[in-house]
Amino acid sequence: MGNTSTRAAHAPVPIRAVVFDAYGTLFDVHSVASLAEQLFPGSGDALSQLWRRKQLEYSWLRAMSGRYKPFWDVTRDALRFAAERLALSMQPAQEVRLMNQYASLSAFPENLSALRALKAAGLPLGILSNGNREMIEVSVRSAGMTGLFDHLLSSQDVDTFKTTATIYALAPSAFGCRAREILFVSSNCWDAIGARWYGYTSFWINRAGAPLEQLDTQPDYTGSLLTDVLSVARP
Amino acid sequence: MGNTSTRAAHAPVPIRAVVFDAYGTLFDVHSVASLAEQLFPGSGDALSQLWRRKQLEYSWLRAMSGRYKPFWDVTRDALRFAAERLALSMQPAQEVRLMNQYASLSAFPENLSALRALKAAGLPLGILSNGNREMIEVSVRSAGMTGLFDHLLSSQDVDTFKTTATIYALAPSAFGCRAREILFVSSNCWDAIGARWYGYTSFWINRAGAPLEQLDTQPDYTGSLLTDVLSVARP
Repeated sequence: MGNTSTRAAHAPVPIRAVVFDAYGTLFDVHSVASLAEQLFPGSGDALSQLWRRKQLEYSWLRAMSGRYKPFWDVTRDALRFAAERLALSMQPAQEVRLMNQYASLSAFPENLSALRALKAAGLPLGILSNGNREMIEVSVRSAGMTGLFDHLLSSQDVDTFKTTATIYALAPSAFGCRAREILFVSSNCWDAIGARWYGYTSFWINRAGAPLEQLDTQPDYTGSLLTDVLSVARP
Repeated sequence: MGNTSTRAAHAPVPIRAVVFDAYGTLFDVHSVASLAEQLFPGSGDALSQLWRRKQLEYSWLRAMSGRYKPFWDVTRDALRFAAERLALSMQPAQEVRLMNQYASLSAFPENLSALRALKAAGLPLGILSNGNREMIEVSVRSAGMTGLFDHLLSSQDVDTFKTTATIYALAPSAFGCRAREILFVSSNCWDAIGARWYGYTSFWINRAGAPLEQLDTQPDYTGSLLTDVLSVARP
């Protein structure tokens, strides 16, 4: 927990619930990059990076313009663009295999113990994700996290994506408390800042040692592992 | 004009005005990449690409979350992040030189003749840009385009960025006609699609031969040079 740093620009309030982003935060998407490299030797890294970037870009453009469609479909669109942009001739069977990786993601090694410790401390837990409901449910099962979460909150509940206020509004409503009393945990710095903008107490899991995004706002806390959350969230 | 392709999914209407995106469409930002390479040999391309990408990302995140600030400042934030991410130790004087490139951009070679031909055909012209007013005005002067435009429309007029509806609403209001009767021209595919979503007739200048973004919508027209617009816009 040595990397945990307090960034709160306001007096801390007691944390009454902990809500997690899904992809990259709870679920390790590394297996996607591995398969991409196996299918397209020498281009796996470029493909998985551009795929992820386009997945986010398309979600942001659709959120801004009110053009929601389920994240699964956005993810497929992004994969198709990325493959075409990199001049990889992706066959339908290869596309299916890459997409199916999203249905069998594993958890990061420390995640289950961190979630169980939070649960044991009596904190209600949730997921708040751009993913559609089926994607989230399948990932939770696949990662052995069944029964740990009180609420699985999806972009499908509001037909928009992060960082729009309406999707961040789901957790305070579900847990019946103020956003400030919810610790929002994400490995995406932009998401931790978006949540902070909305009003959450936010925690950035900076697994890769990335620089802070330059958005005039910092997450309240930063750490490098999900277990770092314990020092902040436990009463 | 051989690359112009009609994509209209609806009956075309007479074009009553032509509105242009600024950066990359009217103004050539290549000089930025050249200076970046001069200042950071071997990293100029990576720096200018990440800079541009972050400039857009930050504009989208701020638009979604209602956190507008002038594009000049967003551009500086993006430059700082990109330099830090690439572990380049950018000195203040280097930052100033890179930022100032945005104040002295040249036009693409064919642009002035295309704009003059449209003007001669009696079409009112405008710019609709994420840039703040001062950036747009300086760029217009620097590129020798003074007097060609009837309206310079800026994100500063509405405190948000593309692809939000309120910024696209500026041109129909300024020109006093329906969005469908305005040809919106951009070299950014996502912008040409965002404009099409809003209701414009849109033209994508695909200078780099990029693949179409996978957003379930196509620009009405595609070409590779600004002069390609003449075949569509002139009565």
